[in-house]
Formats: sequence, C-alpha cells, structure tokens
Amino acid sequence: MTSENQIPRATAQRLPIYYYYLSTLNDAGIKRINSSEISEAIKFDAATVRRDFSYFGALGKRGFGYDVSALLSFFSKVLSQDKLNKVAVVGVGNLGQALMKNNFSHTSNIEIVMGFDADDDKRSIKLVNEMGKSVPVYHVKELAERLHANNITIAILTVPEKAAQEVTDQLVAAGIKGILNFSPIRITVPSSVRVQNVDLTTGMQTLIYFVDNFKNIKSAK
Amino acid sequence: MTSENQIPRATAQRLPIYYYYLSTLNDAGIKRINSSEISEAIKFDAATVRRDFSYFGALGKRGFGYDVSALLSFFSKVLSQDKLNKVAVVGVGNLGQALMKNNFSHTSNIEIVMGFDADDDKRSIKLVNEMGKSVPVYHVKELAERLHANNITIAILTVPEKAAQEVTDQLVAAGIKGILNFSPIRITVPSSVRVQNVDLTTGMQTLIYFVDNFKNIKSAK
Repeated sequence: MTSENQIPRATAQRLPIYYYYLSTLNDAGIKRINSSEISEAIKFDAATVRRDFSYFGALGKRGFGYDVSALLSFFSKVLSQDKLNKVAVVGVGNLGQALMKNNFSHTSNIEIVMGFDADDDKRSIKLVNEMGKSVPVYHVKELAERLHANNITIAILTVPEKAAQEVTDQLVAAGIKGILNFSPIRITVPSSVRVQNVDLTTGMQTLIYFVDNFKNIKSAK
Repeated sequence: MTSENQIPRATAQRLPIYYYYLSTLNDAGIKRINSSEISEAIKFDAATVRRDFSYFGALGKRGFGYDVSALLSFFSKVLSQDKLNKVAVVGVGNLGQALMKNNFSHTSNIEIVMGFDADDDKRSIKLVNEMGKSVPVYHVKELAERLHANNITIAILTVPEKAAQEVTDQLVAAGIKGILNFSPIRITVPSSVRVQNVDLTTGMQTLIYFVDNFKNIKSAK
C-alpha cells in the first residue's frame, strides 16, 4: 500500500469482508484463488474485487490468481489484525450486554474490556464474555478517567437516543477517536473522530422495502 | 413513485433514514425543510438528497423547499409504515434475545412476534419486549409450520456461523422473502429472496481501520 494513494471509503468498508473470507480459505487449506471465485463467494462483482485490490498494489497474476496466505498476511497488516484493539461499550442495556458477552466472535484483535452506564444498578451486572473473562461495568462519570488509564480510543455507543449526542460529546472530550454508533440519530463529531453507523431499524426497514418493492430496485451488481 | 422507474439500491437504503429524520421534524412541529438542511442533519450531500427525492417524483419547490408533513406521509407510504410487518428471530442467543426485547424501538410497523432455536432449553426463556408483550420461543423444527400459520415472510438470522446456511435454506423453504443476516458469512439465497447483511464485526473492523488510516481514506462526501 503506497501511503500517498487515497483509498475510497467503499473499498475500506469491504476490507474486513475480504479478510474474513481469506481467513476461511486459509483455514480450509486453500492456496490459490482468483477474483471470480472471490466475487462468487462474497457477492461483489469481480471487477470491484480487482479494482479494490489494485489500490493496495495488485498482488494477483493473470491466469494464476492470488496466493491466499500472502494475501491474508497482507490484509492482516492493513487491518491491524496483529494489534489488540481495546474497546468500551457505553450504554449497558440489552444490546450493550449482548455485545459485551459475544465480543465480536471470529476476531482475535478486538476486545470489549469495560462498559459504562448512567444507571448505578448496572454496575452490579456480572458479565462474562465468550473467552470466560469478566467485563466490568462502571458509572459513566468515570468515563474519561477509565478510558485514559486503559488507552481506549474506540467506543460502542448503545445509549438511548435522547442521550446519544451528550454521551458522544463526553466520549470526544475523553479522547475517543472512533465510535460504532447503534443509536438511530446521526451523531455530530469533530472531523478528527470517525463514526460508523449500525442502524438496526434502518437495516430492517430497508429490507422490508426491498421485499415489498422487489421489481423496482436495481440490482447491486 | 412511478412504478416503471427503477430505484438505485443506494437510494433505497437511504429511505428509512429520510423517514426517521422527517418524523423527528414533524414531531417537533417543523413545517418546511430544504435539501441543504436535510443534508446537514443526516450527513449526505444536498445533491444526493435532491437526486434521491427526484426518483419519487420530486415534491420540492425551488426557494420553498419541502413540506415536511406531505413528505412524511409520502415516505410513510413508500416504506409501508402503515402496515405491520411481523418478523421472526432465528437463533435466540445474546444478540437474538436483545433484538427480541428491544423490538426495533422507534418504529411502530415492525414487531418481532416469535423466536426459534435448535436448543430446547431456550424455549423456557421468558422474553418480554418494550411494549410489555411476551415473545415466545419455539424449537426450530416448528419453523415452517409457525411461519406459515402467522404469515411471516421476514426473518432475522442470529444463529452461529456454522448453522447459518443450513438455517437459511430452511427459511427459504418455509417461504421467507427477506433475511436480516447478522452472521459473518455471506448466505446464498434464490434471487427471489432479499438479504440485508448486518455484520457487526466487519463494522467494528472498518471503524478501527478508518481510525488507524485516517489520512489515507477519501471522505464520503
């Protein structure tokens, strides 16, 4: 990857999907793959796959395809899979608790290490993740202190909608650089902070709309 | 909306976001809005907003903007907000249970009415959603019968990865037309079935990648 090349946002969003698929292939002992096979498996067209890979300096050979383990170790570095990313959940409701327990299974590089909630009662919830580790819940007033002490720069926002912007401002003030936002509102952050929205309701409404209007929507391909 | 016009997939995915924002404005008593204000609030550029709206036959007037309540009732019809969509959760683990309890708060047109799991013990879990309704859990062998009897055509897939494709095949055989897929694999379905992927791990890895490579990624705008 040449650092002067800018990567389109859409390409960046596909990187973890490529990485996950290549890991599966590698685990299955598959050595070589071509762009059509990748395309077939992950449902993006082959031209998109080739274009995406070209941003990182190609790596494939016509008629041979790509070397799976070379590609995997390359994407692993790009995605910082070799560094542990400590993450905090803010808002320990049903969804927050589910995330803390599941801890993004299938990844070894993300660990939700603590949760925060404005409700004092939440501090007594005993949460154990899939690796058997206990994950503590603190009062949200300890946010800045705990995040700094643990070098946490990534947060998952699962607070109720009416608290979302206020808590976002506290996260930004505490030095958070990335927010995975589950609240349905679009939060406002300084340009130095990245937000990735996961709006489950919007996802579901989009699906229903697609089902109801099947013939009126152009295929993604 | 003229039925012969095809709507791009990206536009369709933005519809629920427009709808949600317009509801908020309407609740706040706001009567008029222009594309720049919409753009500012939901973080898509104004040209995108105008182009999206144009697929549905415009509705705005230069210098006046859009009438909020007219636009809202229009999008409401487009999104079938006036019909109740019954949904089943398949895979009643941590995430499945959180979804069943939260039931997509902020919408009145989606109701998760039942869950299915291969584990008999899950049938004894007492789940009550935010409206105070009890949501039953059935064994997955009752899938086809229960879905048919309740006219359910939308399912949320929260099973472990290794079961995802097998359960998908069962859902398709049971007449499901839309799947909100939380498993990290890309499931294969016939072309008559719509899939919307919500890959939380990919979302988190993308966020981390954005944070780590801030200067190398082109802005979405």
